[in-house]
Amino acid sequence: MKVSIIGATGYTGEELLRILAAHPAVEIAYITSESQNGENINRVYPHLSHLYDKKLVSMNKLEIIAEESDIVFLGLPHGHAMAAGKRLLAGGTKVIDLGADYRFRDIAVYQKWYKVEHTHVDAPSVYGLPELYRSKVKEAILIGNPGCYTTASILALAPLVKNELIELNSIVIDAKSGVSGAGRGLSLNSHFSETFENVKAYNIGGHRHTPEIEQALSEQAGNEVVVTFTPHLIPMARGILSTCYGTLKAGVDSTDVDQAFAKMYGDEYFIRLLGRGGYPATKNTRGSNFCDIGWHIDSRTGRVISVSAIDNLVKGAAGQAVQNLNIMFGLDERTGLSQAPLYP
Amino acid sequence: MKVSIIGATGYTGEELLRILAAHPAVEIAYITSESQNGENINRVYPHLSHLYDKKLVSMNKLEIIAEESDIVFLGLPHGHAMAAGKRLLAGGTKVIDLGADYRFRDIAVYQKWYKVEHTHVDAPSVYGLPELYRSKVKEAILIGNPGCYTTASILALAPLVKNELIELNSIVIDAKSGVSGAGRGLSLNSHFSETFENVKAYNIGGHRHTPEIEQALSEQAGNEVVVTFTPHLIPMARGILSTCYGTLKAGVDSTDVDQAFAKMYGDEYFIRLLGRGGYPATKNTRGSNFCDIGWHIDSRTGRVISVSAIDNLVKGAAGQAVQNLNIMFGLDERTGLSQAPLYP
Amino acid sequence: MKVSIIGATGYTGEELLRILAAHPAVEIAYITSESQNGENINRVYPHLSHLYDKKLVSMNKLEIIAEESDIVFLGLPHGHAMAAGKRLLAGGTKVIDLGADYRFRDIAVYQKWYKVEHTHVDAPSVYGLPELYRSKVKEAILIGNPGCYTTASILALAPLVKNELIELNSIVIDAKSGVSGAGRGLSLNSHFSETFENVKAYNIGGHRHTPEIEQALSEQAGNEVVVTFTPHLIPMARGILSTCYGTLKAGVDSTDVDQAFAKMYGDEYFIRLLGRGGYPATKNTRGSNFCDIGWHIDSRTGRVISVSAIDNLVKGAAGQAVQNLNIMFGLDERTGLSQAPLYP
Amino acid sequence: MKVSIIGATGYTGEELLRILAAHPAVEIAYITSESQNGENINRVYPHLSHLYDKKLVSMNKLEIIAEESDIVFLGLPHGHAMAAGKRLLAGGTKVIDLGADYRFRDIAVYQKWYKVEHTHVDAPSVYGLPELYRSKVKEAILIGNPGCYTTASILALAPLVKNELIELNSIVIDAKSGVSGAGRGLSLNSHFSETFENVKAYNIGGHRHTPEIEQALSEQAGNEVVVTFTPHLIPMARGILSTCYGTLKAGVDSTDVDQAFAKMYGDEYFIRLLGRGGYPATKNTRGSNFCDIGWHIDSRTGRVISVSAIDNLVKGAAGQAVQNLNIMFGLDERTGLSQAPLYP
Repeated sequence: MKVSIIGATGYTGEELLRILAAHPAVEIAYITSESQNGENINRVYPHLSHLYDKKLVSMNKLEIIAEESDIVFLGLPHGHAMAAGKRLLAGGTKVIDLGADYRFRDIAVYQKWYKVEHTHVDAPSVYGLPELYRSKVKEAILIGNPGCYTTASILALAPLVKNELIELNSIVIDAKSGVSGAGRGLSLNSHFSETFENVKAYNIGGHRHTPEIEQALSEQAGNEVVVTFTPHLIPMARGILSTCYGTLKAGVDSTDVDQAFAKMYGDEYFIRLLGRGGYPATKNTRGSNFCDIGWHIDSRTGRVISVSAIDNLVKGAAGQAVQNLNIMFGLDERTGLSQAPLYP
Repeated sequence: MKVSIIGATGYTGEELLRILAAHPAVEIAYITSESQNGENINRVYPHLSHLYDKKLVSMNKLEIIAEESDIVFLGLPHGHAMAAGKRLLAGGTKVIDLGADYRFRDIAVYQKWYKVEHTHVDAPSVYGLPELYRSKVKEAILIGNPGCYTTASILALAPLVKNELIELNSIVIDAKSGVSGAGRGLSLNSHFSETFENVKAYNIGGHRHTPEIEQALSEQAGNEVVVTFTPHLIPMARGILSTCYGTLKAGVDSTDVDQAFAKMYGDEYFIRLLGRGGYPATKNTRGSNFCDIGWHIDSRTGRVISVSAIDNLVKGAAGQAVQNLNIMFGLDERTGLSQAPLYP
Repeated sequence: MKVSIIGATGYTGEELLRILAAHPAVEIAYITSESQNGENINRVYPHLSHLYDKKLVSMNKLEIIAEESDIVFLGLPHGHAMAAGKRLLAGGTKVIDLGADYRFRDIAVYQKWYKVEHTHVDAPSVYGLPELYRSKVKEAILIGNPGCYTTASILALAPLVKNELIELNSIVIDAKSGVSGAGRGLSLNSHFSETFENVKAYNIGGHRHTPEIEQALSEQAGNEVVVTFTPHLIPMARGILSTCYGTLKAGVDSTDVDQAFAKMYGDEYFIRLLGRGGYPATKNTRGSNFCDIGWHIDSRTGRVISVSAIDNLVKGAAGQAVQNLNIMFGLDERTGLSQAPLYP
Repeated sequence: MKVSIIGATGYTGEELLRILAAHPAVEIAYITSESQNGENINRVYPHLSHLYDKKLVSMNKLEIIAEESDIVFLGLPHGHAMAAGKRLLAGGTKVIDLGADYRFRDIAVYQKWYKVEHTHVDAPSVYGLPELYRSKVKEAILIGNPGCYTTASILALAPLVKNELIELNSIVIDAKSGVSGAGRGLSLNSHFSETFENVKAYNIGGHRHTPEIEQALSEQAGNEVVVTFTPHLIPMARGILSTCYGTLKAGVDSTDVDQAFAKMYGDEYFIRLLGRGGYPATKNTRGSNFCDIGWHIDSRTGRVISVSAIDNLVKGAAGQAVQNLNIMFGLDERTGLSQAPLYP
């Protein structure tokens, strides 16, 4: 299978390259970068030496890329992916977009939160969270690959809202992310000396992953869900921990909660249930496509606290994209994703 | 003023020594350690060389220590401080206990959460959170110095409950702590390779700082407050960030919230209000006795999110203890606590 | 091929399990632990869940393990491996020891530096540094797998001493290691709060990897080499950077140095030559079996500085052991070791 | 005493503000920034709130600043400080420059390494390393404050070269620095995700602190000293560890070395001698003006290894500048510098 990556030099593109290097069914066709056009990828990322020896090209000849690729990953900023996506689909290739452009059913929600006009309104996109939408992913030609906070938070809460175990207006999501989620672009917020030995919240009430979480949870619940979502930046490179709070409905007991998780995820390879009382740790997922989930009942307050851990660049981005590719092409879902987490 | 420290070799004791080295009115009388009795403190902590040249002694002659000290800090494990506190008070000295033994009004609460019988039931203890109990601290001879999570969480929430701005049953506290909070004792949980590049929650629903938070908030509210409290361990040495959620009562608007914080803390030197929309960062408080607070209204969900940052070893332990000492002895509250935070 | 691991719960044993999980020709027969005998490995290391579901057993029935294994890795403390090695070899299996017991040609050197009597003096051991001893490894039934500092330092210096480019008495090796090199055992030296935001040297002139480096360099040089070796502990989990200094012999120029590296390593897959002026970074090797090497001529002082980077747990331990296994069994050397480094 | 800081928003300027906040004899007159002219310093650095409430101004009216200041600190890039220094001296104030412009006796050396023409050739500058040049500092009106690597390396080696204990052509300096040394300017080299869990060397043979080290050591030796100097970047914010190697001259023994350090530094408050066998750790100096030194004899190779640790922003920059100020104005050298290191 021939695979191309548009925008290959960000952390997401580089992570795709890392994963695909071990994927037995994939051959890289094109990798693009406008700023480093003509450069060998192993000059940009020396850790890929002896694994890749390939030049970055411009994305301006997108039609050729479409023609010579069975599938194309888009690693472009939101607002830019949809133009490329349109041309690629027209060229007959499949597309997985790792940004936000194809994640929303309701274009108005996208436009409100992202302040950009959507120019590919009738896109046949599928939301690529396999554990919830696997059958649709199987038929898809265009995937909107979920965000990192989103993946962790939805997976932690879906069993609770789907099975009507918590009050829908009670959800609070407190998430902690490593700095790689902010990408490779330079900013004081990812300057080492500022970020090290530091923790802070940001974008309270306004982070763009909020509507994405609400969209999926509302579908699971069959009712509108509105959440409070607070992202935090913590001093590590990879990993997201999402601590999710909800008030149990009257009459719900701990067994109901246990069963909801078991029923929804008991057969999922990439979700590891730590059970009631279990404590996920981001380190246990680092470098892998696993999402670890544990949950707790706070009987004093009647709340359930569901905690999930992922590697933001893998299950929260590139790994999930490869999982989607596997499903779209009828491969075993684990193909190329069987690496054990890197611990310690 | 002659000051002694019982249990001087833990991080709290060492932090007291750091702070007191710059306190103009204090002279160290005795420092004790049972395990390193006879050792010079600057062998145990080489960073204190050229600042201290003093031997650790055993605490077995507590009466002599009491006689020769104007005040004694207790840095003993919970359950052990009360025996020492009793003897020290009997010896005529004042006492500030940095552990849990003297923090609770209701002994039953202490005994339930700490699984220890309280043996100093009639102790004349005052809860040493100066911003809420300053007048009592002024008269006190025995202080129960608050815990680290506790200080951050109470200060973030007190204006909201005192002014009846949030539903009392809606409080969720999601706190993140550096590893020094777990002390200098060895454990896999503070083993570098396990903790680095890692984040996890622990003791959900069962952390012992929970009842302490509830005690103070209930007093402020004039009604019983029960909270969900979730501590997390993050890969840094110092600092606590406490992210506190509450549902606004009907009719409360953002100005009410702003005013509540301004009224309660506007004149407090050690509390720095970042205002509505402000984002505290632990790094801004590192090494100092400051508590930074910012708050946010999530109008989509009707919640207020109040965020506080402290240095767990300073405002969360030793610094607050020195602040209490200053108040008890009629000194300017800032004496010895005027160091700027260490940044970056 | 059936593989067993004696002492599977240290970081080296766990890293072997991580690598072998992706090795197509290997099946795990036994994993042992005396302290956690009977426990499932995925309870000890939850990150291995969904990859392994296997109980740890005691190593007391070593004969059965030998019989049912084609090869056995030893992850025991020095002084203990040789007893196990003897019994395993007698049982007809091959052995790779990841400790020091089988690394020395001259038993007296081992006994002097390790203060232990050697009890398996006639062991048919081969020093398992494939880039220097590949043909011997191919025939070996017993491998002494090199240490982590050792691997990095020897590989950086071998071309220089073998080609007589530097004065043999001029070598200084200044090495920096992440904390995982100290293992999972608890100590103040790997206590998070002590190690974070800290760097220090240790064991100057006395580290046990010194004679191992000297043994290999002396063989390459054909003359006795004595080095100054200084290890440092730096605040990261994985990785070793070895900065090696030597005085160029009269008449040697930079081209001679370039050619020496190219000739020795030009065809080696796991050694990536960054060339003259290149700067290895441990992060580029993390999680992989690569050793990156760059070198510099300081013409003002007539020295060459050769710098190497490895992941101490992979090329410095478990990865190199698997590389040796591949060679011993006639497999492609890269089998199971084709993972890209984890970056960032 | 009225003090101004030109270029107050870099880490060095900010560190001066931190230290001076606790200096009893200092009042801040002006703080300047061209990029943030008009902004309050506590908006740029929120950690300084409640300690400073002062606006940044432009440096264009340097004559007024000179007139109203008893001393001015320069925190400008090299090449820019000399123009300001000239005008300030002309205005009658004293000057301490924290950059390189006034550090070199031989202007040609400056111009060769810094590729800038020197425009203040006859400046009456004194090299501000008090432990070596205290009497000159006392009389100075213009100080070239030493660099961070420089301070650590010179102090570690001065007793050895001054007392003719090592071969002058044998010196190798391997130094490790935290990231704050690279300042607050954004670059991929101080981007969190790139720097975290990483170590690398840089500028081998070409770092600009090299000639500064050589200048001081040559003066101490009374002969020209040329060194190999290798800086490394390690994942921490503050701290430099300098590991210095030299070959002992024939006949020199360990007692000679011990005595050289004792004689030179025995009475120095800011130098803490850990003795032969002592291991300095950067953490022990963090936030303080101390320089810790330990040394080791490697009798197998005839080398002495001297290791020093400092906080690069304090003894390596702002703290040393304040130490110089104290000396210039006849104050106790420790004034404002008596803070204990922040540990852990």
